[in-house]
Amino acid sequence: MNRIRVADGQIFAFSPNLQPVAASGPGEVFEVECQDSCGGQIRTEADLLSKIDLDHVNGATGPVEIVGALPGDTLRVRVLDLRVGKVGYMGIEPKLGVLGDRVTAAKTRILPVRGGFARFSQDVRLPVQPHIGTIGVATAGETLSTFYPGDHGGNLDTREIRAGNTLYLPVFQPGAMLAMGDVHALMADGEVCVTGIEIDGVVRLRTDLLPEVHLKRPVVETRGAWIVLASAPDLDAAARLATSDAVDLLARGRGMDWEDAYMLASLVCDLRISQDVDPHRTCKMIIPKEYLPRLPGMAAPARTRRPTRAAPRRGRR
Amino acid sequence: MNRIRVADGQIFAFSPNLQPVAASGPGEVFEVECQDSCGGQIRTEADLLSKIDLDHVNGATGPVEIVGALPGDTLRVRVLDLRVGKVGYMGIEPKLGVLGDRVTAAKTRILPVRGGFARFSQDVRLPVQPHIGTIGVATAGETLSTFYPGDHGGNLDTREIRAGNTLYLPVFQPGAMLAMGDVHALMADGEVCVTGIEIDGVVRLRTDLLPEVHLKRPVVETRGAWIVLASAPDLDAAARLATSDAVDLLARGRGMDWEDAYMLASLVCDLRISQDVDPHRTCKMIIPKEYLPRLPGMAAPARTRRPTRAAPRRGRR
Repeated sequence: MNRIRVADGQIFAFSPNLQPVAASGPGEVFEVECQDSCGGQIRTEADLLSKIDLDHVNGATGPVEIVGALPGDTLRVRVLDLRVGKVGYMGIEPKLGVLGDRVTAAKTRILPVRGGFARFSQDVRLPVQPHIGTIGVATAGETLSTFYPGDHGGNLDTREIRAGNTLYLPVFQPGAMLAMGDVHALMADGEVCVTGIEIDGVVRLRTDLLPEVHLKRPVVETRGAWIVLASAPDLDAAARLATSDAVDLLARGRGMDWEDAYMLASLVCDLRISQDVDPHRTCKMIIPKEYLPRLPGMAAPARTRRPTRAAPRRGRR
Repeated sequence: MNRIRVADGQIFAFSPNLQPVAASGPGEVFEVECQDSCGGQIRTEADLLSKIDLDHVNGATGPVEIVGALPGDTLRVRVLDLRVGKVGYMGIEPKLGVLGDRVTAAKTRILPVRGGFARFSQDVRLPVQPHIGTIGVATAGETLSTFYPGDHGGNLDTREIRAGNTLYLPVFQPGAMLAMGDVHALMADGEVCVTGIEIDGVVRLRTDLLPEVHLKRPVVETRGAWIVLASAPDLDAAARLATSDAVDLLARGRGMDWEDAYMLASLVCDLRISQDVDPHRTCKMIIPKEYLPRLPGMAAPARTRRPTRAAPRRGRR
């Protein structure tokens, strides 16, 4: 299986012009090694968020060219597996996080992770639920540090981007240029203190291209729902975008009047918060599949197309 | 059983000086009849939100004096039962709701409710989950229309305020002065279109006083969690307040350093949205009971005290 290592390449900004360090054909299974969000700068409780180089956080391994991806396509990323390392960290820091104004001094905690549990303290062991914090593609035009979430993905900090679920990203540039990092062993909605359990990990994934599906922003598919993600400078703006996208999907996907979809969303689609701590905030709206079995344009089975470079080894399809 | 009817009294603002229309002793079971949020002004799909008197929405039946309640107490309201009427409505209106700027004309839908389901359309039947939209007590000082949520409760539009769950409200004035209305048969987190299924209903409840518990704002208890509610002019401010309160409760309740409680909350306490459409927004932070078995001050069993007026009929305790 193809495996992309941190040493192969890492980016600290998503931009329109990314040079691939590897390539993958649609349908191929590959693995990506991810550093923790601080790239290993925090090893002990004496290593504080205040002392690290904040210009080099959220390094994303890649980018990986998805062979044949063209602007306007949707890139489907199935997260098949996510294995995390043996030790993670958390940190707080004045001015960071939802309560940054109440934090008087930086503090770091080191959390051993073993057997599916993280040890927070002597008496608190937490079952882990690893997810990918930062994952995205080349942007339409802007250059955004990997600390930012956006329409291209990036630092979405959405805990549903985990093994067993599927992420859909709009493709803005040829080859998509997928990169990822910033794995968390655990995080609640909001990520209020500014970190989850930050840890390194290895993601196994498979991508497909959906040329007939057109998205403005990332969507996560779980077994039971579509989770529409939107990021903006504040929660209010992010909530509005997520709601607007979800209502549009519901209206188009069900062939309903927009007004009726808006009312139905008010009854069955939860508007929630992915994270409230990154430079832009991310909200999510959850559309249960019983009201939207598939995304608009998705009725036709996914097809791989335009493979212009041979994929070295093909995984199961 | 004591039953308070709309005709007994209804308020359209929560203020410090409310005159009771009934009284209930702690531990007593009583029922409160609630009008829908528009007080029956919307009966057909020709009745639009734009045509009703918006100064008389969310009429709250009561207030009920809780005998013996003193400022600084916590009022515990166990919602024992909530039965809704046979027909509800939803409405949208330009400028109202998360997507008010996309609404070009007001629209009303009438939804029959029968056998636990609401009929949204020919092909969409929705299982109802009734909750109380507006419930609160006399305020500390300000006068707020019943359209507003706040520290006193009010238009919290939090779907967990439902039968089987318990609401805790800070008491600001002698007798607490509990009033409620604005029942919904169903609503998702966010209530994005500005209404749930608005309907009349009858609430059965029992109150207790917890003099040793001190809350700044409302908290809901479910079987598995404490849900800390906070309302503010925008989502960002509401999210910050809810997080701050929840971290304080976690720190005090567990005897943890505040910094550690802040980090633990980032891992296990979901920060979510109750409603994003009322004049002030309401966020909630969910503290699983495994990390906080009881609210600080709650260790001692609840006691009734200072009964200064005889309760006419006592329910089960």
